Amino acid sequence: MLNILVEASARHAHVTKEHLAILFGEGYALHNVRELSQPGQYLTEEKIRIEGPRGAIDKVSILGPERPSTQVEISFTDARVLGIKPPVRESGDIAGSASIIIVGPAGSVELTEGAMVAKRHIHLTPTVAEEHGLKDKQIVSVRLGGERGLVFNEVVCRVRGDFAPAMHIDYDESNAAGLSGEVTGTVEV
Amino acid sequence: MLNILVEASARHAHVTKEHLAILFGEGYALHNVRELSQPGQYLTEEKIRIEGPRGAIDKVSILGPERPSTQVEISFTDARVLGIKPPVRESGDIAGSASIIIVGPAGSVELTEGAMVAKRHIHLTPTVAEEHGLKDKQIVSVRLGGERGLVFNEVVCRVRGDFAPAMHIDYDESNAAGLSGEVTGTVEV
Repeated sequence: MLNILVEASARHAHVTKEHLAILFGEGYALHNVRELSQPGQYLTEEKIRIEGPRGAIDKVSILGPERPSTQVEISFTDARVLGIKPPVRESGDIAGSASIIIVGPAGSVELTEGAMVAKRHIHLTPTVAEEHGLKDKQIVSVRLGGERGLVFNEVVCRVRGDFAPAMHIDYDESNAAGLSGEVTGTVEV
Repeated sequence: MLNILVEASARHAHVTKEHLAILFGEGYALHNVRELSQPGQYLTEEKIRIEGPRGAIDKVSILGPERPSTQVEISFTDARVLGIKPPVRESGDIAGSASIIIVGPAGSVELTEGAMVAKRHIHLTPTVAEEHGLKDKQIVSVRLGGERGLVFNEVVCRVRGDFAPAMHIDYDESNAAGLSGEVTGTVEV
């Protein structure tokens, strides 16, 4: 039986070097505030505004380091505020995702695609995956207890040497499960 | 097997006659906009503002008719905006629930208790309940499909002659399940 740490991800953006230069100015570098559970990933000091046809949300965090493509991960609650209809996607799979405008202190970028709701997923190391008979891209379920107990189906496993074991969900999902503090779930195959 | 209509409830308030008079003025009567799925319950024209120590939310609907006690049903997403920590409760069980301020055009009321996150529940008629071997207050699970498929556990059955069969969840739960349009779930005992 695999018990896994469950972490709720707030809305956030990943940006390319080119977009960072537009948003914050030429030659700008991200400032690391704290390391995240996944090795090499960090919360930065930098905040942007995201805009849709209906509304905007300020103070959206950028996660570092820079990435090959810019993407904005939001919840369906956020999507309603913005007035956009993002698909549920795995990080990095931006083709055909929703358009959104991102605004920094130095400039703004209109993304024709890049806004998505993150597909719930589990990060696993190859060692932990093998121990529990799990494979990259495998779809599993995760059971959470408590007064809002539920079983998340459609959870995708992602296995990589530079990952640390953790499940990532968004705040809609965390709130639906009534989570607070440090929580673990049980993986069910 | 019982398939049931799943409805997402937006944040809303139920008010007493006394509080309605304070919020909207002496002798004020609620205006029915449309009937809800539960017989006798209706969305009204009247909107209030709700306030917590951290923030406020405007245009919160009042559902009619008036009730013996005033309560405000919000999501955990709303609770974060307001800066309050409401418990998960069945409607009407307000003892010890969170404090909140409600504001209408004529006045405001500071409720020492009344703010809650609704416990997910199924309304059933005695006939349907009996057909499926379900009892009032029984805790069941409800399975929902789709790309954010999940199983809600801790769903309480409520059986009453003036109910219509429907499951009620809040928007955090609806978004976590990726619901849109008319959706049915499967009750699992």
